[in-house]
Amino acid sequence: MPELRRDPIVGRWVIIATERARRPNQFRRAEDPPGGLCPFCPGHEDKTPGEVYVSGRSAAPANLKGWKVRVVPNRYPALMIEGDLDREAVGIYDRMNGVGAHEIVIETPDHARELSELSDAEVTEVLFAFKARVVDLKNDQRFRYILIFKNHGSAAGATLEHTHSQLIALPVTPRQVADEIDGAKRHHELRERCIYCDIVGQERKDRSRLVYENEEFVAFEPWAPRSPFETWIVPRRHESNFESEPKERLSYAAQALRVTLAKLMTGLGRPAYNFMVHTNPLRDPASPSYHWHVEVVPALTQVAGFEWGSGFHINPVPPEEAAEFLRKVAV
Amino acid sequence: MPELRRDPIVGRWVIIATERARRPNQFRRAEDPPGGLCPFCPGHEDKTPGEVYVSGRSAAPANLKGWKVRVVPNRYPALMIEGDLDREAVGIYDRMNGVGAHEIVIETPDHARELSELSDAEVTEVLFAFKARVVDLKNDQRFRYILIFKNHGSAAGATLEHTHSQLIALPVTPRQVADEIDGAKRHHELRERCIYCDIVGQERKDRSRLVYENEEFVAFEPWAPRSPFETWIVPRRHESNFESEPKERLSYAAQALRVTLAKLMTGLGRPAYNFMVHTNPLRDPASPSYHWHVEVVPALTQVAGFEWGSGFHINPVPPEEAAEFLRKVAV
Repeated sequence: MPELRRDPIVGRWVIIATERARRPNQFRRAEDPPGGLCPFCPGHEDKTPGEVYVSGRSAAPANLKGWKVRVVPNRYPALMIEGDLDREAVGIYDRMNGVGAHEIVIETPDHARELSELSDAEVTEVLFAFKARVVDLKNDQRFRYILIFKNHGSAAGATLEHTHSQLIALPVTPRQVADEIDGAKRHHELRERCIYCDIVGQERKDRSRLVYENEEFVAFEPWAPRSPFETWIVPRRHESNFESEPKERLSYAAQALRVTLAKLMTGLGRPAYNFMVHTNPLRDPASPSYHWHVEVVPALTQVAGFEWGSGFHINPVPPEEAAEFLRKVAV
Repeated sequence: MPELRRDPIVGRWVIIATERARRPNQFRRAEDPPGGLCPFCPGHEDKTPGEVYVSGRSAAPANLKGWKVRVVPNRYPALMIEGDLDREAVGIYDRMNGVGAHEIVIETPDHARELSELSDAEVTEVLFAFKARVVDLKNDQRFRYILIFKNHGSAAGATLEHTHSQLIALPVTPRQVADEIDGAKRHHELRERCIYCDIVGQERKDRSRLVYENEEFVAFEPWAPRSPFETWIVPRRHESNFESEPKERLSYAAQALRVTLAKLMTGLGRPAYNFMVHTNPLRDPASPSYHWHVEVVPALTQVAGFEWGSGFHINPVPPEEAAEFLRKVAV
């Protein structure tokens, strides 16, 4: 059983995921199936655990061809779906069982196409799948947070080529999100406004860091990006919870995501990248101060000792230059 | 002039280091000198900016051969030593000039030897150099914090092979350290004890995560390591400030560091790694709750979307297994 351990000083949680390793000197993740067959391609539905969501064909009979988007449990999960948390103290330390869900969202049946190459309608289907899984997993009272993310390219941690994203349901709210929620709450206490709404307002007025906008979403380089070409996609209207977005607005989100990724891919020579959806924790009421969004981070620089040791990042590309460059990339 | 920008939500600072980049599509760090000559080797003292510290020969005349440890400004600094901070608001955002020091500590004249292969006496000389630079830079009232760190191997961000470490003096205390200081303060308010002293006590009693100890320092795998084989080196006696350590105790720190690195190098097939010295901020009084230490992080796993998005880390090797493995590595 994997284990969740809390750092006693800063409160950072770590997943000790023993199921993913074999011996102390063989610790790299490996998910490639024997024989090199892609388990995410149509016709190989039996090579993955049984699907928990499907679109494009009826749900029963399950695990057949003909789907558009398919969600399956990760065969090598970081957390296990069965069991109780069993929180306990170990001297001055805290631990609990590594209970959670770890699922794979297979974004298209087509092995040869990347998320940025799908149509707006296809990317919208992917966001619908994200929403459906969050709505379903929210019923499990053990979970406090669901992190949706994508690793594209091996430099960004992907181990299988066929385009997919992932979600991990966690029994705790991750510190990165908690820090954002706390910061947004401080701003709201002071000004009675959402800081993300303020940022969207300033970015749309200033325009120097703007990459793309449509009626409902705006994509821009943040003021203090950790990485060159880091891009945030933020709803223009206030909404704390990703899963509360109606389907119409998710299609605008999909368009903004697709255009942003296509600009990064075309402009920067197809870099590896990660994106993460940050949303309000599952058990919290809708928030006037927090605002869901997507953070896209191309894997262009390395996290080295300075970044590890300080939490500071060194970014050689001003976001204004990055935005100007990306605005000009035609997609 | 590089710029320091603060994320308005979480307060994370980013260095926008334009001097290190050339064009938006060429952003990888490159420090290799033309012709391939190593600028850190004896006889090439004119290939680096003039030395700010030297041991093994007299300081004047400067920049000649015959040294044991040599400290020089980084030719491609992330921050600039000249100028005022000029803190200012940009709408809802904060910025200041990227004022700071960025120095390289050349640990030995011998191009062929790595830090882990030096003698205890030689590593002690390196720690003396760290201390001397902190004591000197502390006089500059613009600086609040000095981060000492090492990138070893290209997977850990090193761009030159000749063994060296770095220090960056900053006008703000990095968030990572501020989080540790805050966590340690909370523990002290509750229990009137230093949490690091408590951890050292529990680890020395429990012994399952212990890697090495001598009279003054202990090396162990932390309870919640971010990375397989992450190892902390902590003074057994309470001390908040690295630069307050007397020379005798620094020789014990050097021994613990050298043994730890040699075990990692021998046991794990010479991985890339980073280490960082975490110490009390320059302008704070000596602290009863904070405790300086070194964090060594081998570059064995990748930081992917989940880690970026959550601050959570997934670690496939339990620290007890890592410690047992490292204890058995003979060095």
